[in-house]
Amino acid sequence: MSKPQLINTVAKMQAQSDTWRGEGLRIGLVPTMGFLHEGHLSLVDYSLSAADRTIVSIFVNPLQFGPKEDFAIYPRDIERDIKLLAQRGVDAVFKPQTVEFYPPDFSTTVEVTHLADGLCGAMRPGHFRGVTTVVSKLFTATKPHLAIFGQKDYQQAAVIRRLVRDLNLDLHIEVAPTMREADGLAMSSRNVNLTEDERRRVPALYQALAMAKRYIECGERDTQRIIGEMRSQIEKELGGDIEYISIVHPDTLEDLSEIAGPVVIALAVRLANVRLIDNISAEPSRK
Amino acid sequence: MSKPQLINTVAKMQAQSDTWRGEGLRIGLVPTMGFLHEGHLSLVDYSLSAADRTIVSIFVNPLQFGPKEDFAIYPRDIERDIKLLAQRGVDAVFKPQTVEFYPPDFSTTVEVTHLADGLCGAMRPGHFRGVTTVVSKLFTATKPHLAIFGQKDYQQAAVIRRLVRDLNLDLHIEVAPTMREADGLAMSSRNVNLTEDERRRVPALYQALAMAKRYIECGERDTQRIIGEMRSQIEKELGGDIEYISIVHPDTLEDLSEIAGPVVIALAVRLANVRLIDNISAEPSRK
Repeated sequence: MSKPQLINTVAKMQAQSDTWRGEGLRIGLVPTMGFLHEGHLSLVDYSLSAADRTIVSIFVNPLQFGPKEDFAIYPRDIERDIKLLAQRGVDAVFKPQTVEFYPPDFSTTVEVTHLADGLCGAMRPGHFRGVTTVVSKLFTATKPHLAIFGQKDYQQAAVIRRLVRDLNLDLHIEVAPTMREADGLAMSSRNVNLTEDERRRVPALYQALAMAKRYIECGERDTQRIIGEMRSQIEKELGGDIEYISIVHPDTLEDLSEIAGPVVIALAVRLANVRLIDNISAEPSRK
Repeated sequence: MSKPQLINTVAKMQAQSDTWRGEGLRIGLVPTMGFLHEGHLSLVDYSLSAADRTIVSIFVNPLQFGPKEDFAIYPRDIERDIKLLAQRGVDAVFKPQTVEFYPPDFSTTVEVTHLADGLCGAMRPGHFRGVTTVVSKLFTATKPHLAIFGQKDYQQAAVIRRLVRDLNLDLHIEVAPTMREADGLAMSSRNVNLTEDERRRVPALYQALAMAKRYIECGERDTQRIIGEMRSQIEKELGGDIEYISIVHPDTLEDLSEIAGPVVIALAVRLANVRLIDNISAEPSRK
Protein backbone atom coordinates (compact mmCIF):
# COMPACT_ATOMS: atom_id res chain seq x y z
CA MET A 1 0.00 0.00 0.00
CA SER A 2 1.57 3.25 -1.16
CA LYS A 3 -0.11 6.59 -0.75
CA PRO A 4 -1.51 8.05 -4.00
CA GLN A 5 -0.11 11.34 -5.19
CA LEU A 6 -2.42 14.16 -4.17
CA ILE A 7 -2.63 16.66 -7.05
CA ASN A 8 -4.40 19.99 -6.63
CA THR A 9 -3.71 21.94 -9.80
CA VAL A 10 -4.62 21.40 -13.42
CA ALA A 11 -1.07 22.10 -14.59
CA LYS A 12 0.43 19.43 -12.31
CA MET A 13 -2.26 16.93 -13.23
CA GLN A 14 -1.73 17.50 -16.96
CA ALA A 15 2.04 17.23 -16.55
CA GLN A 16 1.70 13.90 -14.69
CA SER A 17 -0.67 12.53 -17.33
CA ASP A 18 1.66 13.70 -20.11
CA THR A 19 4.51 11.85 -18.43
CA TRP A 20 2.46 8.66 -18.17
CA ARG A 21 1.27 8.99 -21.76
CA GLY A 22 4.84 9.58 -22.88
CA GLU A 23 5.77 6.27 -21.25
CA GLY A 24 3.01 4.52 -23.18
CA LEU A 25 0.90 3.92 -20.06
CA ARG A 26 -2.90 3.81 -20.26
CA ILE A 27 -4.68 6.12 -17.85
CA GLY A 28 -8.01 5.36 -16.19
CA LEU A 29 -10.10 8.06 -14.52
CA VAL A 30 -12.82 7.57 -11.91
CA PRO A 31 -14.59 10.92 -11.39
CA THR A 32 -16.24 11.18 -7.96
CA MET A 33 -17.60 13.73 -5.51
CA GLY A 34 -15.81 11.90 -2.70
CA PHE A 35 -17.25 10.27 0.46
CA LEU A 36 -16.43 7.02 -1.24
CA HIS A 37 -18.37 3.81 -0.82
CA GLU A 38 -18.10 0.32 -2.30
CA GLY A 39 -19.82 1.53 -5.46
CA HIS A 40 -17.00 3.99 -6.17
CA LEU A 41 -14.42 1.41 -5.19
CA SER A 42 -15.82 -1.07 -7.69
CA LEU A 43 -15.23 1.55 -10.41
CA VAL A 44 -11.71 2.05 -9.04
CA ASP A 45 -11.09 -1.70 -9.16
CA TYR A 46 -12.28 -1.75 -12.75
CA SER A 47 -9.82 0.98 -13.66
CA LEU A 48 -6.97 -0.70 -11.78
CA SER A 49 -7.52 -3.86 -13.79
CA ALA A 50 -8.07 -2.15 -17.17
CA ALA A 51 -5.52 0.69 -17.09
CA ASP A 52 -1.86 1.10 -16.11
CA ARG A 53 -2.43 4.19 -13.98
CA THR A 54 -5.60 5.12 -12.12
CA ILE A 55 -6.62 8.66 -11.20
CA VAL A 56 -9.58 9.28 -8.89
CA SER A 57 -10.90 12.81 -8.98
CA ILE A 58 -12.69 14.16 -5.93
CA PHE A 59 -14.63 17.35 -6.47
CA VAL A 60 -18.04 18.33 -5.14
CA ASN A 61 -19.00 20.31 -8.21
CA PRO A 62 -21.08 23.37 -7.26
CA LEU A 63 -22.28 23.77 -10.88
CA GLN A 64 -24.37 20.62 -10.78
CA PHE A 65 -26.34 21.54 -7.64
CA GLY A 66 -29.43 23.72 -7.85
CA PRO A 67 -29.80 26.63 -5.41
CA LYS A 68 -32.20 24.61 -3.23
CA GLU A 69 -30.24 21.37 -3.41
CA ASP A 70 -27.91 19.68 -0.96
CA PHE A 71 -24.51 21.12 -1.92
CA ALA A 72 -23.91 22.34 1.65
CA ILE A 73 -24.80 19.05 3.33
CA TYR A 74 -23.26 16.78 0.69
CA PRO A 75 -21.05 14.53 2.84
CA ARG A 76 -17.27 15.02 2.67
CA ASP A 77 -14.35 13.17 4.26
CA ILE A 78 -11.21 13.56 2.22
CA GLU A 79 -8.88 11.84 4.68
CA ARG A 80 -10.98 8.71 4.79
CA ASP A 81 -11.27 8.81 0.98
CA ILE A 82 -7.50 8.98 0.53
CA LYS A 83 -6.97 6.12 2.97
CA LEU A 84 -9.45 3.94 1.06
CA LEU A 85 -7.79 4.80 -2.25
CA ALA A 86 -4.33 4.09 -0.84
CA GLN A 87 -5.52 0.64 0.24
CA ARG A 88 -6.73 0.04 -3.29
CA GLY A 89 -3.44 1.14 -4.87
CA VAL A 90 -4.67 4.17 -6.78
CA ASP A 91 -1.87 6.23 -8.38
CA ALA A 92 -3.21 9.77 -8.08
CA VAL A 93 -6.02 11.65 -6.42
CA PHE A 94 -6.94 14.78 -8.34
CA LYS A 95 -8.67 17.29 -6.10
CA PRO A 96 -9.05 20.53 -8.03
CA GLN A 97 -9.52 23.78 -6.18
CA THR A 98 -12.81 25.50 -6.88
CA VAL A 99 -11.06 28.85 -7.27
CA GLU A 100 -8.93 27.44 -10.09
CA PHE A 101 -11.67 25.34 -11.67
CA TYR A 102 -14.20 28.16 -11.66
CA PRO A 103 -12.53 31.57 -11.61
CA PRO A 104 -14.91 34.52 -11.07
CA ASP A 105 -15.22 35.22 -14.81
CA PHE A 106 -15.67 31.56 -15.75
CA SER A 107 -18.12 31.63 -18.64
CA THR A 108 -18.07 28.38 -20.60
CA THR A 109 -20.72 25.68 -20.54
CA VAL A 110 -20.84 22.31 -22.21
CA GLU A 111 -24.35 21.01 -22.68
CA VAL A 112 -26.02 17.91 -24.06
CA THR A 113 -29.64 18.53 -25.01
CA HIS A 114 -32.47 15.98 -25.51
CA LEU A 115 -30.87 13.12 -23.56
CA ALA A 116 -30.47 15.45 -20.60
CA ASP A 117 -33.99 16.88 -20.77
CA GLY A 118 -36.10 14.11 -19.21
CA LEU A 119 -35.88 12.07 -15.98
CA CYS A 120 -33.51 13.81 -13.52
CA GLY A 121 -32.88 16.58 -16.06
CA ALA A 122 -36.53 17.63 -15.87
CA MET A 123 -36.42 17.74 -12.07
CA ARG A 124 -33.01 19.39 -11.73
CA PRO A 125 -32.72 22.22 -14.26
CA GLY A 126 -29.08 22.87 -15.12
CA HIS A 127 -27.86 19.76 -13.33
CA PHE A 128 -26.57 17.93 -16.38
CA ARG A 129 -25.10 21.13 -17.81
CA GLY A 130 -23.07 21.28 -14.60
CA VAL A 131 -22.11 17.64 -14.97
CA THR A 132 -21.06 17.85 -18.63
CA THR A 133 -19.11 21.05 -17.98
CA VAL A 134 -17.17 19.63 -15.04
CA VAL A 135 -16.60 16.28 -16.72
CA SER A 136 -15.20 18.07 -19.78
CA LYS A 137 -12.77 19.86 -17.48
CA LEU A 138 -11.87 16.69 -15.59
CA PHE A 139 -11.14 14.98 -18.92
CA THR A 140 -8.87 17.76 -20.18
CA ALA A 141 -7.13 17.94 -16.81
CA THR A 142 -6.48 14.21 -16.46
CA LYS A 143 -6.23 13.12 -20.14
CA PRO A 144 -7.53 9.61 -19.54
CA HIS A 145 -7.76 6.78 -22.06
CA LEU A 146 -10.68 5.39 -20.11
CA ALA A 147 -13.21 6.89 -17.70
CA ILE A 148 -15.53 4.81 -15.54
CA PHE A 149 -19.01 5.81 -14.40
CA GLY A 150 -21.62 3.94 -12.40
CA GLN A 151 -24.84 2.56 -13.80
CA LYS A 152 -26.68 3.99 -10.78
CA ASP A 153 -26.46 7.34 -12.54
CA TYR A 154 -27.80 5.85 -15.75
CA GLN A 155 -28.87 9.10 -17.38
CA GLN A 156 -25.56 10.72 -16.47
CA ALA A 157 -23.66 7.90 -18.16
CA ALA A 158 -25.82 8.18 -21.29
CA VAL A 159 -25.32 11.94 -21.40
CA ILE A 160 -21.56 11.57 -21.01
CA ARG A 161 -21.35 8.91 -23.71
CA ARG A 162 -23.11 11.35 -26.04
CA LEU A 163 -20.78 14.18 -25.01
CA VAL A 164 -17.78 11.99 -25.80
CA ARG A 165 -19.16 10.98 -29.18
CA ASP A 166 -20.30 14.47 -30.18
CA LEU A 167 -17.07 16.23 -29.21
CA ASN A 168 -14.86 13.43 -30.61
CA LEU A 169 -13.19 12.99 -27.24
CA ASP A 170 -10.53 10.37 -27.72
CA LEU A 171 -11.34 8.23 -24.69
CA HIS A 172 -13.46 5.27 -23.79
CA ILE A 173 -16.39 5.39 -21.35
CA GLU A 174 -17.09 2.33 -19.26
CA VAL A 175 -20.27 1.95 -17.19
CA ALA A 176 -19.99 -0.41 -14.21
CA PRO A 177 -22.91 -2.08 -12.41
CA THR A 178 -24.68 -0.51 -9.44
CA MET A 179 -23.44 -1.77 -6.08
CA ARG A 180 -26.14 -2.47 -3.51
CA GLU A 181 -26.41 -2.99 0.21
CA ALA A 182 -27.53 -6.45 1.38
CA ASP A 183 -31.16 -5.26 1.38
CA GLY A 184 -30.97 -3.95 -2.19
CA LEU A 185 -30.49 -0.23 -1.51
CA ALA A 186 -28.24 1.28 -4.17
CA MET A 187 -25.06 2.59 -2.59
CA SER A 188 -24.85 6.37 -2.55
CA SER A 189 -22.85 8.90 -0.58
CA ARG A 190 -26.18 10.54 0.21
CA ASN A 191 -27.48 7.49 2.11
CA VAL A 192 -25.65 8.81 5.17
CA ASN A 193 -28.17 11.65 5.29
CA LEU A 194 -31.12 9.26 5.65
CA THR A 195 -32.89 9.08 9.01
CA GLU A 196 -32.94 5.69 10.69
CA ASP A 197 -36.58 5.23 9.84
CA GLU A 198 -36.03 6.21 6.19
CA ARG A 199 -33.06 3.87 5.97
CA ARG A 200 -35.24 0.98 7.10
CA ARG A 201 -37.85 1.73 4.47
CA VAL A 202 -35.84 2.79 1.37
CA PRO A 203 -35.20 -0.77 0.12
CA ALA A 204 -38.77 -0.39 -1.17
CA LEU A 205 -37.24 1.39 -4.15
CA TYR A 206 -35.16 -1.56 -5.24
CA GLN A 207 -38.02 -3.92 -4.49
CA ALA A 208 -40.27 -1.93 -6.80
CA LEU A 209 -37.62 -1.99 -9.55
CA ALA A 210 -37.09 -5.72 -9.11
CA MET A 211 -40.84 -6.31 -9.24
CA ALA A 212 -41.09 -4.32 -12.46
CA LYS A 213 -38.24 -6.31 -13.95
CA ARG A 214 -40.04 -9.56 -13.13
CA TYR A 215 -43.28 -8.27 -14.68
CA ILE A 216 -41.42 -7.44 -17.87
CA GLU A 217 -39.60 -10.75 -17.99
CA CYS A 218 -42.95 -12.49 -17.57
CA GLY A 219 -44.43 -10.70 -20.58
CA GLU A 220 -46.14 -7.58 -19.24
CA ARG A 221 -45.89 -4.97 -22.01
CA ASP A 222 -47.95 -2.08 -20.68
CA THR A 223 -45.57 0.37 -19.05
CA GLN A 224 -48.33 2.42 -17.40
CA ARG A 225 -49.64 -0.64 -15.61
CA ILE A 226 -46.16 -1.48 -14.31
CA ILE A 227 -45.48 2.10 -13.24
CA GLY A 228 -48.84 2.19 -11.45
CA GLU A 229 -47.93 -0.92 -9.45
CA MET A 230 -44.53 0.50 -8.58
CA ARG A 231 -46.05 3.77 -7.47
CA SER A 232 -48.55 2.17 -5.11
CA GLN A 233 -45.90 -0.12 -3.65
CA ILE A 234 -43.49 2.78 -3.02
CA GLU A 235 -46.25 4.97 -1.59
CA LYS A 236 -47.24 2.18 0.77
CA GLU A 237 -43.78 1.10 1.90
CA LEU A 238 -41.78 4.32 1.82
CA GLY A 239 -43.81 7.46 1.19
CA GLY A 240 -41.81 10.54 0.20
CA ASP A 241 -42.29 12.57 -2.95
CA ILE A 242 -41.97 10.41 -6.06
CA GLU A 243 -40.36 12.67 -8.68
CA TYR A 244 -40.65 10.18 -11.48
CA ILE A 245 -40.96 6.51 -12.29
CA SER A 246 -40.18 5.97 -15.97
CA ILE A 247 -39.63 3.08 -18.34
CA VAL A 248 -37.37 4.33 -21.10
CA HIS A 249 -35.41 3.23 -24.15
CA PRO A 250 -31.84 2.39 -23.03
CA ASP A 251 -30.19 4.66 -25.64
CA THR A 252 -32.59 7.52 -26.37
CA LEU A 253 -34.03 7.62 -22.82
CA GLU A 254 -37.43 8.25 -24.36
CA ASP A 255 -40.50 7.17 -22.41
CA LEU A 256 -42.03 3.98 -23.74
CA SER A 257 -45.70 3.14 -23.64
CA GLU A 258 -45.20 -0.45 -24.69
CA ILE A 259 -42.31 -2.82 -24.04
CA ALA A 260 -40.90 -4.49 -27.14
CA GLY A 261 -37.20 -4.88 -26.27
CA PRO A 262 -34.62 -3.89 -23.68
CA VAL A 263 -35.64 -1.04 -21.38
CA VAL A 264 -34.41 0.82 -18.35
CA ILE A 265 -36.73 1.38 -15.42
CA ALA A 266 -35.66 4.49 -13.53
CA LEU A 267 -36.99 6.39 -10.56
CA ALA A 268 -36.27 9.30 -8.25
CA VAL A 269 -37.79 9.93 -4.83
CA ARG A 270 -37.32 12.89 -2.56
CA LEU A 271 -37.32 12.33 1.19
CA ALA A 272 -36.83 14.96 3.90
CA ASN A 273 -33.11 15.63 3.34
CA VAL A 274 -32.18 13.20 0.62
CA ARG A 275 -33.10 12.69 -2.99
CA LEU A 276 -32.53 9.09 -4.08
CA ILE A 277 -32.35 7.66 -7.60
CA ASP A 278 -32.09 4.11 -8.82
CA ASN A 279 -32.63 2.11 -11.99
CA ILE A 280 -32.55 -1.38 -13.39
CA SER A 281 -32.30 -2.85 -16.88
CA ALA A 282 -34.94 -5.31 -18.04
CA GLU A 283 -35.87 -7.21 -21.15
CA PRO A 284 -38.81 -9.47 -22.04
CA SER A 285 -37.63 -13.09 -22.08
CA ARG A 286 -37.59 -14.60 -25.55
CA LYS A 287 -40.21 -17.27 -26.02
CA MET B 1 6.56 21.15 -52.70
CA SER B 2 4.86 17.99 -51.51
CA LYS B 3 1.14 17.56 -51.41
CA PRO B 4 -0.37 17.64 -47.91
CA GLN B 5 -2.17 14.55 -46.69
CA LEU B 6 -5.91 14.98 -47.15
CA ILE B 7 -7.67 13.55 -44.10
CA ASN B 8 -11.45 13.18 -44.00
CA THR B 9 -12.24 11.29 -40.82
CA VAL B 10 -11.77 12.07 -37.17
CA ALA B 11 -10.25 8.65 -36.45
CA LYS B 12 -7.56 9.07 -39.12
CA MET B 13 -6.81 12.61 -38.03
CA GLN B 14 -6.47 11.59 -34.37
CA ALA B 15 -4.25 8.64 -35.34
CA GLN B 16 -1.96 10.93 -37.38
CA SER B 17 -1.74 13.45 -34.55
CA ASP B 18 -1.05 10.67 -32.04
CA THR B 19 1.80 9.47 -34.24
CA TRP B 20 3.29 12.94 -34.45
CA ARG B 21 2.88 13.49 -30.72
CA GLY B 22 4.51 10.12 -30.06
CA GLU B 23 7.51 11.32 -32.06
CA GLY B 24 7.73 14.42 -29.89
CA LEU B 25 6.62 16.73 -32.71
CA ARG B 26 4.69 19.93 -31.99
CA ILE B 27 1.46 20.29 -33.95
CA GLY B 28 0.05 23.60 -35.17
CA LEU B 29 -3.56 23.95 -36.32
CA VAL B 30 -5.01 26.67 -38.55
CA PRO B 31 -8.80 26.30 -38.56
CA THR B 32 -10.41 27.77 -41.69
CA MET B 33 -13.60 27.68 -43.72
CA GLY B 34 -11.51 27.42 -46.90
CA PHE B 35 -11.38 29.75 -49.93
CA LEU B 36 -8.02 30.75 -48.63
CA HIS B 37 -6.45 34.18 -48.99
CA GLU B 38 -3.22 35.78 -47.84
CA GLY B 39 -4.72 36.29 -44.40
CA HIS B 40 -5.12 32.55 -43.90
CA LEU B 41 -1.73 31.92 -45.42
CA SER B 42 -0.08 34.28 -42.95
CA LEU B 43 -1.55 32.12 -40.16
CA VAL B 44 -0.24 29.04 -41.96
CA ASP B 45 3.21 30.60 -42.20
CA TYR B 46 3.11 31.36 -38.50
CA SER B 47 2.32 27.72 -37.74
CA LEU B 48 4.99 26.44 -40.12
CA SER B 49 7.58 28.51 -38.30
CA ALA B 50 6.36 27.76 -34.76
CA ALA B 51 5.40 24.07 -34.99
CA ASP B 52 6.90 20.89 -36.44
CA ARG B 53 3.74 19.80 -38.22
CA THR B 54 0.98 22.05 -39.55
CA ILE B 55 -2.63 20.98 -40.03
CA VAL B 56 -5.07 23.26 -41.86
CA SER B 57 -8.71 22.38 -41.32
CA ILE B 58 -11.23 23.34 -43.97
CA PHE B 59 -14.84 23.13 -42.93
CA VAL B 60 -17.70 25.50 -43.68
CA ASN B 61 -19.43 24.96 -40.37
CA PRO B 62 -23.22 25.05 -40.77
CA LEU B 63 -23.70 25.55 -37.00
CA GLN B 64 -22.24 29.04 -37.06
CA PHE B 65 -24.51 30.41 -39.79
CA GLY B 66 -27.97 31.72 -39.00
CA PRO B 67 -30.91 30.59 -41.14
CA LYS B 68 -30.87 33.86 -43.11
CA GLU B 69 -27.10 34.03 -43.46
CA ASP B 70 -24.77 33.23 -46.33
CA PHE B 71 -23.96 29.55 -45.75
CA ALA B 72 -25.15 28.63 -49.26
CA ILE B 73 -23.15 31.31 -51.04
CA TYR B 74 -20.08 31.13 -48.83
CA PRO B 75 -17.31 30.69 -51.43
CA ARG B 76 -15.64 27.28 -51.75
CA ASP B 77 -12.74 26.04 -53.88
CA ILE B 78 -11.07 23.06 -52.27
CA GLU B 79 -8.71 22.27 -55.15
CA ARG B 80 -7.28 25.76 -55.20
CA ASP B 81 -6.99 25.65 -51.40
CA ILE B 82 -5.04 22.41 -51.46
CA LYS B 83 -2.72 23.74 -54.16
CA LEU B 84 -2.00 26.87 -52.09
CA LEU B 85 -1.34 24.77 -48.99
CA ALA B 86 0.93 22.41 -50.92
CA GLN B 87 2.98 25.39 -52.10
CA ARG B 88 3.32 26.46 -48.49
CA GLY B 89 4.43 23.03 -47.31
CA VAL B 90 1.51 22.20 -45.02
CA ASP B 91 1.55 18.63 -43.68
CA ALA B 92 -2.13 17.79 -43.52
CA VAL B 93 -5.46 19.19 -44.62
CA PHE B 94 -8.28 18.06 -42.35
CA LYS B 95 -11.61 18.28 -44.13
CA PRO B 96 -14.23 16.62 -41.93
CA GLN B 97 -17.44 15.35 -43.45
CA THR B 98 -20.55 17.07 -42.16
CA VAL B 99 -22.32 13.74 -41.77
CA GLU B 100 -19.59 12.53 -39.40
CA PHE B 101 -19.11 15.85 -37.61
CA TYR B 102 -22.83 16.37 -37.05
CA PRO B 103 -24.74 13.10 -37.08
CA PRO B 104 -28.54 13.47 -37.05
CA ASP B 105 -28.77 13.05 -33.27
CA PHE B 106 -25.86 15.39 -32.54
CA SER B 107 -26.84 17.16 -29.35
CA THR B 108 -23.85 18.79 -27.66
CA THR B 109 -23.06 22.48 -27.55
CA VAL B 110 -20.12 24.33 -26.13
CA GLU B 111 -20.89 27.92 -25.28
CA VAL B 112 -19.04 30.93 -23.92
CA THR B 113 -21.38 33.50 -22.43
CA HIS B 114 -20.74 37.23 -21.72
CA LEU B 115 -17.78 37.65 -24.10
CA ALA B 116 -19.90 36.23 -26.90
CA ASP B 117 -22.97 38.35 -26.14
CA GLY B 118 -22.04 41.74 -27.59
CA LEU B 119 -20.70 42.94 -30.96
CA CYS B 120 -21.19 40.19 -33.58
CA GLY B 121 -22.79 37.94 -30.96
CA ALA B 122 -25.67 40.38 -30.56
CA MET B 123 -26.23 40.51 -34.33
CA ARG B 124 -25.78 36.80 -35.01
CA PRO B 125 -27.62 34.80 -32.33
CA GLY B 126 -26.06 31.36 -31.94
CA HIS B 127 -23.07 32.22 -34.12
CA PHE B 128 -20.42 31.94 -31.42
CA ARG B 129 -22.08 28.85 -29.98
CA GLY B 130 -21.55 27.31 -33.41
CA VAL B 131 -17.95 28.53 -33.45
CA THR B 132 -17.05 27.26 -29.98
CA THR B 133 -18.73 23.92 -30.64
CA VAL B 134 -16.91 23.32 -33.93
CA VAL B 135 -13.59 24.60 -32.61
CA SER B 136 -13.88 22.20 -29.64
CA LYS B 137 -14.37 19.37 -32.12
CA LEU B 138 -11.51 20.52 -34.35
CA PHE B 139 -9.23 20.64 -31.31
CA THR B 140 -10.12 17.11 -30.18
CA ALA B 141 -9.80 15.81 -33.74
CA THR B 142 -6.40 17.39 -34.45
CA LYS B 143 -4.85 17.50 -30.94
CA PRO B 144 -2.73 20.58 -31.60
CA HIS B 145 -0.17 22.15 -29.30
CA LEU B 146 -0.86 25.50 -30.93
CA ALA B 147 -3.83 26.95 -32.83
CA ILE B 148 -3.68 30.18 -34.79
CA PHE B 149 -6.57 32.57 -35.35
CA GLY B 150 -6.73 35.94 -37.10
CA GLN B 151 -7.13 39.26 -35.37
CA LYS B 152 -9.74 40.20 -37.98
CA ASP B 153 -12.15 38.03 -36.02
CA TYR B 154 -11.20 39.74 -32.79
CA GLN B 155 -14.23 38.68 -30.77
CA GLN B 156 -13.90 35.11 -32.02
CA ALA B 157 -10.30 35.00 -30.83
CA ALA B 158 -11.28 36.40 -27.42
CA VAL B 159 -14.09 33.86 -27.09
CA ILE B 160 -11.79 30.99 -28.03
CA ARG B 161 -9.10 32.09 -25.59
CA ARG B 162 -11.75 32.03 -22.86
CA LEU B 163 -12.95 28.60 -23.99
CA VAL B 164 -9.41 27.28 -23.80
CA ARG B 165 -8.84 28.71 -20.36
CA ASP B 166 -12.21 27.64 -18.95
CA LEU B 167 -12.05 24.08 -20.22
CA ASN B 168 -8.32 23.70 -19.36
CA LEU B 169 -7.53 22.81 -22.95
CA ASP B 170 -3.84 22.04 -23.05
CA LEU B 171 -2.94 24.11 -26.09
CA HIS B 172 -1.76 27.60 -26.90
CA ILE B 173 -3.80 30.14 -28.88
CA GLU B 174 -1.93 32.57 -31.08
CA VAL B 175 -3.66 35.57 -32.70
CA ALA B 176 -1.99 36.87 -35.87
CA PRO B 177 -2.43 40.36 -37.36
CA THR B 178 -5.11 41.16 -39.93
CA MET B 179 -3.86 41.08 -43.52
CA ARG B 180 -5.11 43.92 -45.72
CA GLU B 181 -5.35 44.70 -49.40
CA ALA B 182 -3.28 47.64 -50.65
CA ASP B 183 -6.22 49.99 -50.06
CA GLY B 184 -6.70 48.82 -46.47
CA LEU B 185 -9.61 46.41 -46.92
CA ALA B 186 -9.26 43.49 -44.50
CA MET B 187 -8.84 40.26 -46.41
CA SER B 188 -11.87 37.99 -46.19
CA SER B 189 -13.16 35.07 -48.22
CA ARG B 190 -16.43 36.96 -48.41
CA ASN B 191 -14.87 39.88 -50.33
CA VAL B 192 -15.40 37.86 -53.52
CA ASN B 193 -19.14 38.37 -53.08
CA LEU B 194 -18.81 42.18 -53.19
CA THR B 195 -20.10 43.98 -56.29
CA GLU B 196 -17.54 46.03 -58.19
CA ASP B 197 -19.02 49.24 -56.87
CA GLU B 198 -19.04 47.97 -53.27
CA ARG B 199 -15.46 46.81 -53.65
CA ARG B 200 -14.41 50.30 -54.70
CA ARG B 201 -16.07 51.85 -51.66
CA VAL B 202 -15.42 49.36 -48.81
CA PRO B 203 -11.97 50.72 -47.93
CA ALA B 204 -14.04 53.37 -46.13
CA LEU B 205 -14.27 50.86 -43.25
CA TYR B 206 -10.54 50.72 -42.70
CA GLN B 207 -10.24 54.46 -43.21
CA ALA B 208 -12.80 55.03 -40.47
CA LEU B 209 -10.92 52.68 -38.13
CA ALA B 210 -7.60 54.36 -38.93
CA MET B 211 -9.14 57.77 -38.31
CA ALA B 212 -10.47 56.63 -34.94
CA LYS B 213 -7.06 55.28 -34.02
CA ARG B 214 -5.48 58.64 -34.83
CA TYR B 215 -8.08 60.48 -32.75
CA ILE B 216 -7.33 58.23 -29.80
CA GLU B 217 -3.58 58.58 -30.19
CA CYS B 218 -4.01 62.36 -30.27
CA GLY B 219 -5.89 62.34 -26.96
CA GLU B 220 -9.58 62.14 -27.82
CA ARG B 221 -11.22 60.26 -24.92
CA ASP B 222 -14.92 60.46 -25.72
CA THR B 223 -15.88 57.23 -27.47
CA GLN B 224 -19.30 58.49 -28.55
CA ARG B 225 -17.74 61.42 -30.38
CA ILE B 226 -15.33 59.10 -32.21
CA ILE B 227 -18.07 56.62 -33.10
CA GLY B 228 -20.23 59.49 -34.39
CA GLU B 229 -17.43 60.61 -36.70
CA MET B 230 -16.89 57.08 -37.95
CA ARG B 231 -20.56 56.59 -38.57
CA SER B 232 -20.94 59.73 -40.69
CA GLN B 233 -17.80 58.93 -42.66
CA ILE B 234 -18.98 55.37 -43.42
CA GLU B 235 -22.50 56.52 -44.27
CA LYS B 236 -21.07 59.08 -46.67
CA GLU B 237 -18.44 56.91 -48.36
CA LEU B 238 -20.01 53.47 -48.32
CA GLY B 239 -23.62 53.33 -47.16
CA GLY B 240 -24.92 49.90 -46.22
CA ASP B 241 -26.42 48.92 -42.92
CA ILE B 242 -24.05 49.62 -40.03
CA GLU B 243 -24.67 46.84 -37.51
CA TYR B 244 -22.37 48.25 -34.89
CA ILE B 245 -19.39 50.48 -34.32
CA SER B 246 -17.99 49.89 -30.84
CA ILE B 247 -14.98 50.84 -28.79
CA VAL B 248 -14.38 48.09 -26.29
CA HIS B 249 -11.99 46.86 -23.64
CA PRO B 250 -9.51 44.48 -25.31
CA ASP B 251 -10.12 41.66 -22.79
CA THR B 252 -13.67 42.00 -21.52
CA LEU B 253 -15.05 43.38 -24.82
CA GLU B 254 -17.20 45.72 -22.76
CA ASP B 255 -18.25 49.01 -24.36
CA LEU B 256 -16.27 51.95 -23.07
CA SER B 257 -17.59 55.47 -22.72
CA GLU B 258 -14.18 56.98 -22.04
CA ILE B 259 -10.76 55.95 -23.25
CA ALA B 260 -8.16 55.48 -20.52
CA GLY B 261 -5.95 52.72 -21.93
CA PRO B 262 -5.73 50.22 -24.75
CA VAL B 263 -8.98 49.64 -26.66
CA VAL B 264 -10.27 47.82 -29.68
CA ILE B 265 -12.40 49.64 -32.21
CA ALA B 266 -14.65 47.15 -33.98
CA LEU B 267 -17.37 47.42 -36.59
CA ALA B 268 -19.71 45.38 -38.75
CA VAL B 269 -21.52 46.53 -41.87
CA ARG B 270 -24.05 44.67 -43.94
CA LEU B 271 -24.10 45.27 -47.72
CA ALA B 272 -26.38 43.60 -50.25
CA ASN B 273 -24.83 40.10 -50.17
CA VAL B 274 -21.95 40.49 -47.79
CA ARG B 275 -21.52 41.26 -44.13
CA LEU B 276 -18.07 42.70 -43.39
CA ILE B 277 -16.31 43.08 -40.08
CA ASP B 278 -13.06 44.76 -39.16
CA ASN B 279 -11.26 46.09 -36.10
CA ILE B 280 -8.13 47.86 -35.00
CA SER B 281 -6.30 48.22 -31.70
CA ALA B 282 -5.53 51.69 -30.38
CA GLU B 283 -4.03 53.28 -27.31
CA PRO B 284 -3.63 56.91 -26.20
CA SER B 285 0.01 57.97 -26.59
CA ARG B 286 1.78 58.50 -23.29
CA LYS B 287 2.61 62.12 -22.66
